[in-house]
Amino acid sequence: MQTTTNPGLVAAAERQIPTLHTTRIEPVRLVEAVADESAFQGWRVREVSSLAEWRSSAYGKGESFALDFGDHQVGYVSLSVRHVGSPPDAPLKLRLAFGEMPCEIAESFAEYEGWLSSSWLQEETLFVDVLPAEIRLPRRYSFRFLRIEVVDASPKYKAAFDAVVCEAVSSADRSAVESLPPSVPDDLRRMDRVAIKTLQDCMQTVFEDGPKRDRRLWIGDLRLQAQANYVTFRNYELVRRCLYLFAGMRLEDGAVGACVFEKPEPHVDDTRLYDYSLFFIATLRDYFKASGDRATLEELWPIAMEQVRIGLRRLDERDIVRDEESWYCFIDWHPELNKQAPAQAVLIYCLRRGLELARELGLAGDEADIAAGIERATKAALMHLRDEASGWFVSGAGRQVSWATQVWMALAEVLPAAEGAALLRKLLAEKPAVGMTTPYMHHHLVEALFMHGMAEEAVAHMRTYWGGMLEDGADTFWEIYNPDDKKLSPYGSNLINSYCHAWSCTPTYFIRTYGWEKLSNAGEAAL
Amino acid sequence: MQTTTNPGLVAAAERQIPTLHTTRIEPVRLVEAVADESAFQGWRVREVSSLAEWRSSAYGKGESFALDFGDHQVGYVSLSVRHVGSPPDAPLKLRLAFGEMPCEIAESFAEYEGWLSSSWLQEETLFVDVLPAEIRLPRRYSFRFLRIEVVDASPKYKAAFDAVVCEAVSSADRSAVESLPPSVPDDLRRMDRVAIKTLQDCMQTVFEDGPKRDRRLWIGDLRLQAQANYVTFRNYELVRRCLYLFAGMRLEDGAVGACVFEKPEPHVDDTRLYDYSLFFIATLRDYFKASGDRATLEELWPIAMEQVRIGLRRLDERDIVRDEESWYCFIDWHPELNKQAPAQAVLIYCLRRGLELARELGLAGDEADIAAGIERATKAALMHLRDEASGWFVSGAGRQVSWATQVWMALAEVLPAAEGAALLRKLLAEKPAVGMTTPYMHHHLVEALFMHGMAEEAVAHMRTYWGGMLEDGADTFWEIYNPDDKKLSPYGSNLINSYCHAWSCTPTYFIRTYGWEKLSNAGEAAL
Repeated sequence: MQTTTNPGLVAAAERQIPTLHTTRIEPVRLVEAVADESAFQGWRVREVSSLAEWRSSAYGKGESFALDFGDHQVGYVSLSVRHVGSPPDAPLKLRLAFGEMPCEIAESFAEYEGWLSSSWLQEETLFVDVLPAEIRLPRRYSFRFLRIEVVDASPKYKAAFDAVVCEAVSSADRSAVESLPPSVPDDLRRMDRVAIKTLQDCMQTVFEDGPKRDRRLWIGDLRLQAQANYVTFRNYELVRRCLYLFAGMRLEDGAVGACVFEKPEPHVDDTRLYDYSLFFIATLRDYFKASGDRATLEELWPIAMEQVRIGLRRLDERDIVRDEESWYCFIDWHPELNKQAPAQAVLIYCLRRGLELARELGLAGDEADIAAGIERATKAALMHLRDEASGWFVSGAGRQVSWATQVWMALAEVLPAAEGAALLRKLLAEKPAVGMTTPYMHHHLVEALFMHGMAEEAVAHMRTYWGGMLEDGADTFWEIYNPDDKKLSPYGSNLINSYCHAWSCTPTYFIRTYGWEKLSNAGEAAL
Repeated sequence: MQTTTNPGLVAAAERQIPTLHTTRIEPVRLVEAVADESAFQGWRVREVSSLAEWRSSAYGKGESFALDFGDHQVGYVSLSVRHVGSPPDAPLKLRLAFGEMPCEIAESFAEYEGWLSSSWLQEETLFVDVLPAEIRLPRRYSFRFLRIEVVDASPKYKAAFDAVVCEAVSSADRSAVESLPPSVPDDLRRMDRVAIKTLQDCMQTVFEDGPKRDRRLWIGDLRLQAQANYVTFRNYELVRRCLYLFAGMRLEDGAVGACVFEKPEPHVDDTRLYDYSLFFIATLRDYFKASGDRATLEELWPIAMEQVRIGLRRLDERDIVRDEESWYCFIDWHPELNKQAPAQAVLIYCLRRGLELARELGLAGDEADIAAGIERATKAALMHLRDEASGWFVSGAGRQVSWATQVWMALAEVLPAAEGAALLRKLLAEKPAVGMTTPYMHHHLVEALFMHGMAEEAVAHMRTYWGGMLEDGADTFWEIYNPDDKKLSPYGSNLINSYCHAWSCTPTYFIRTYGWEKLSNAGEAAL
């Protein structure tokens, strides 16, 4: 794969690898997952015995137990294991299964038939040749529950566990987070807390998309994490590091890649997404606005401007983003969703933020180019992508009406504010069939509602959607949540879903950005 | 468990932990195991492609390959693995199965239902989070074949292997082994070589019984390994270390335990075997005779003499070893074998060797006690354990006639030499039903034959038994071999047998102790 690398920018990013904060976490109870059709995904967790009883128990061949660490954790696990009985005359064989959710300690990983690699399932098979042993597992896990099975020992001894400990890690500093004012109602306080925990557990040496699965830096997630970070942990250095990684390693034509890997050395993935490349501009603008770091803005501006040009190059003779069959643009995980109109809207949205930056930098030429691009793309959207009869924006040759298209057109401010609000009201009322599937898309709906003065509807949607996750037992917010189909997985199995996922962390951004004072009437009304 | 520990002796043993010699071993060919009823255990190995082809291949989900390292190895394995395709978007999940024999890479470990712990099956499941990777597996393996399966990767990449290397370890110094004279025939040269390799691979920081399974120091194995060692590697320090471990950590009443463990700190197992405790005396005598190390003899003599007293204490009012139902004496792995008469013979055999040492040390009191013990036990054996009518020695209340009993009575020199030889000739001719099952027992038959001037029969038996293993493909000699039942396992599965086993290493001892010059006529005759 050909890439465009700027070693100076990558080196700047690597100089800012953060030191992780560590916290020692012990299990809080011994549990089991029991089938319960009324529980989320059909599994409920119940306490089976005290930890004191667990510590005094010994487990032989085929016996197992499950520990609950009380909350979602990302970190490294250590075990203290000893033998009970004769000197061990055979190794101890253990199988460990880590679960963010009860389904992961209840269902068999061996029967997994999802579409993503089974190698993401968090399990280990360990052979302990010498007992007693202190074992520190070298891999990092993302979990609340840990099931340990003694696959085999020998008739002469059993295994007992003195301690199983997690050293939780994050680059987020919890002490930087301000308390919410007392006026914020309890459910939103809880939503804020879980959103912050989600962000915290995704904040490692980069902003990861999910600490269980993928574990890498995607720019779509980064943009939302950074927004939540600015009102919570305020870790500007980590955002800066991520911007430099994306800036330093681009695709062949200079486009920012969709995601980058940190190890064994930083490298950009070969995934190219139209919207994600453009989000470099928006992320840089948000960073500058939050941090005031003008040196970074100046250094990275040429790359942002390059994304403007690459984005505009995709406009056809009508000034509409060229559509295609392949996966060229993300927007949302929806198998039917046409991406053309939302892509056009993302272009306009990002150009607007680029315009702000060009003005800030006093670059009249860039400013004029961007302004011209906004005008062309907006005019074309209104001319070719709006169905005058219905009032919907439509996408693709099939003139699809989707939630994503309306939301993004509202965010792009293609219409005057009042008309944008009317479009959103129509959307909430008429509910077109092609809906939203990820918290990432739900975020953009809520953001559009706030932007158009519809705080009441925004808070109501947060309560329905993220509030629904809370009611269904979320310790951190999920990659995927469909209140109408709770076993939905875009990957063919609940076991592989990520249950602490960056793009789901934004309730804290909404609560803290739009201010509870401003929201309280809306919030009270929606209670 | 109460034990009798002498910390000074244990400390002396620990000061002599040897440094291991290491050798870098690379695979020699890419193979597969194919079903073949005419092959040993039903599996044949055949070459499938060159190593160059293997190195240029990439393996995706569900694909596997098997490497042949050319000979039996004991050591640590390293892998160099890289991805082919896009940057890895999921961990690489590998399953490794190590096999001393083809059955281990051909049959599924998951279906193992043997009686010993499945934790002895040499396998690993690895998750590689970052590629390319250099992986050094922390555990030691005993193997010739290694099968690696890519359990999962992702559709975006496959795994390729640049190197899989074994760092073989042993405390044996091959350069110390003298060449055999040219007169030794090829089949015995090969038997000698394989026996030495067996001993070498069992020589680690102690004389292990088997580097694949058990991996600890048993005194029954030690005695034979030491005898083979004195005519090959001549590593006296390692024997000395093992004697001090047994001497330093005994059972409650002072009896030498059947086996000891080295880690996490030296400790004696709770297994007590009548014959094994007594073998401390014989092993000390052999060590002194080979090394001339009088200081060790003097220091350990009180413990040897203690074993004499403990051994004699088991004699009943007739001066016969008290029999019992439980597993109190080893002799051989044979479910029907009665141990009383062979235990009596082992007692006499070891008392004779103790007598030599008491004389050497000029300890008249001990000498007299031992001489009296030999007389009592021998007289009782001849009076109560010999069936005058048939001429057999008989064992237990059921007056069982076994090979083990005759062999041990011959070794104990209960009869005058000519009568002992006649007993052995009768044994070979009449073949009583209760036979021998382990190379350990076959060793004692061969030793008895040599001792009674029956070199021709001894060599013929070596050729049938160990020669049979060679014909069946042994790289090292096995724990278990029954030429009439080649799938025999005392543990319910061939997968768990040890195929490099200390007690099988003695052909080199016979060839080098009894001297090819003396044997050559016998050997030629038996060809």
